[in-house]
Amino acid sequence: MHFIESLNKRYASKQMNGKKVSPEKVTTILESIRLAPTSLGLQPFKVLVVESQELKDKIFEKAAQGQPQIPNSSQVLVFACYKSITTEILDEYTQRIVTQRPTLPLAKVTAYRQMIDKSLNRPDKENFNWAARQAYIALGFALTAAAVEQVDSVPIEGYNPAALDELLGLEDKNLGSVCMMAIGYRDEATDYNATLPKVRKNKTELFEFL
Amino acid sequence: MHFIESLNKRYASKQMNGKKVSPEKVTTILESIRLAPTSLGLQPFKVLVVESQELKDKIFEKAAQGQPQIPNSSQVLVFACYKSITTEILDEYTQRIVTQRPTLPLAKVTAYRQMIDKSLNRPDKENFNWAARQAYIALGFALTAAAVEQVDSVPIEGYNPAALDELLGLEDKNLGSVCMMAIGYRDEATDYNATLPKVRKNKTELFEFL
Repeated sequence: MHFIESLNKRYASKQMNGKKVSPEKVTTILESIRLAPTSLGLQPFKVLVVESQELKDKIFEKAAQGQPQIPNSSQVLVFACYKSITTEILDEYTQRIVTQRPTLPLAKVTAYRQMIDKSLNRPDKENFNWAARQAYIALGFALTAAAVEQVDSVPIEGYNPAALDELLGLEDKNLGSVCMMAIGYRDEATDYNATLPKVRKNKTELFEFL
Repeated sequence: MHFIESLNKRYASKQMNGKKVSPEKVTTILESIRLAPTSLGLQPFKVLVVESQELKDKIFEKAAQGQPQIPNSSQVLVFACYKSITTEILDEYTQRIVTQRPTLPLAKVTAYRQMIDKSLNRPDKENFNWAARQAYIALGFALTAAAVEQVDSVPIEGYNPAALDELLGLEDKNLGSVCMMAIGYRDEATDYNATLPKVRKNKTELFEFL
């Protein structure tokens, strides 16, 4: 299927049928997240892949009662960003660069690290907002990957972040959730959104050519 | 080419060769942006497609001197979000829903509009941060579309937003830029980034299965 046709067929599934997504397709979706670019290359987030039925049920009950697709999804991905970008996180990243780009002169790595330290020398809240944007690039990658794999999905912002973070113990891990994405397969009979046409700006409304 | 292979081959091009991207490929990239989902379906942004060489040169000189790929790119896409989400913008969106989903009962549209009004009843700055996240989903879509089309690209955050916004007259249009994306073709000889391996967290570092 052509890429644009896949994007046209995707939509925000509001009811799923409990069918599991194959491990191969899950791997493709997660790999797209891993490969997504981020500012400074830092990947300032983690992704929790919730497969346990008990935990999906709890997320629905305690943090996302407006999202009935959660209990019947195959997996719920929780994108969680660093609340504080610590020296330890930056040291790990610097080490990763040295390991994965062994031909890069150490002086260049050091200069890059200094630039990063300078860029991120601002309040934690600003860094968190910046980190959230990077996570949303990865969310975009995951949504396109699901579309290409003909897996239904839905990005979810409409939940209680404090309740979700408490349920998953994120605070203790220096993480705060910024969005979820459920993957699975639509329930044709009950998903009112499955047959509605997309609502989008037309090209003239969205783009300006200069 | 398999989707993941395309994502593996993409990278942030730091020097481009001036070759133009075909209109068909540009259309695919823009259409992926148009089809990207956003919270509430609002698409709270516009995308300026800069094709003029003079303007690309000015962006480089006045707002992005650290980004030499800009003058030799084919197009620079500027993602710009609403500084304030006005009643007029919401009225337009409500009308769009009515027009594009004619079978939807008007009572449902009205209830949805009330929910939107309630959700966005917060300071402009919070709405702008929220809008930026939505634009980054679309950025993610555009980056995957470019990868699939074998067009080189680079997301750009490292620029002076105030200078860019002034150059493009965005303030007067109730817009503020949040990121750019240049598309074109790498200059093999000078793009140091073209041959460097990707630096990424491994699966264990990025994902946690629950």
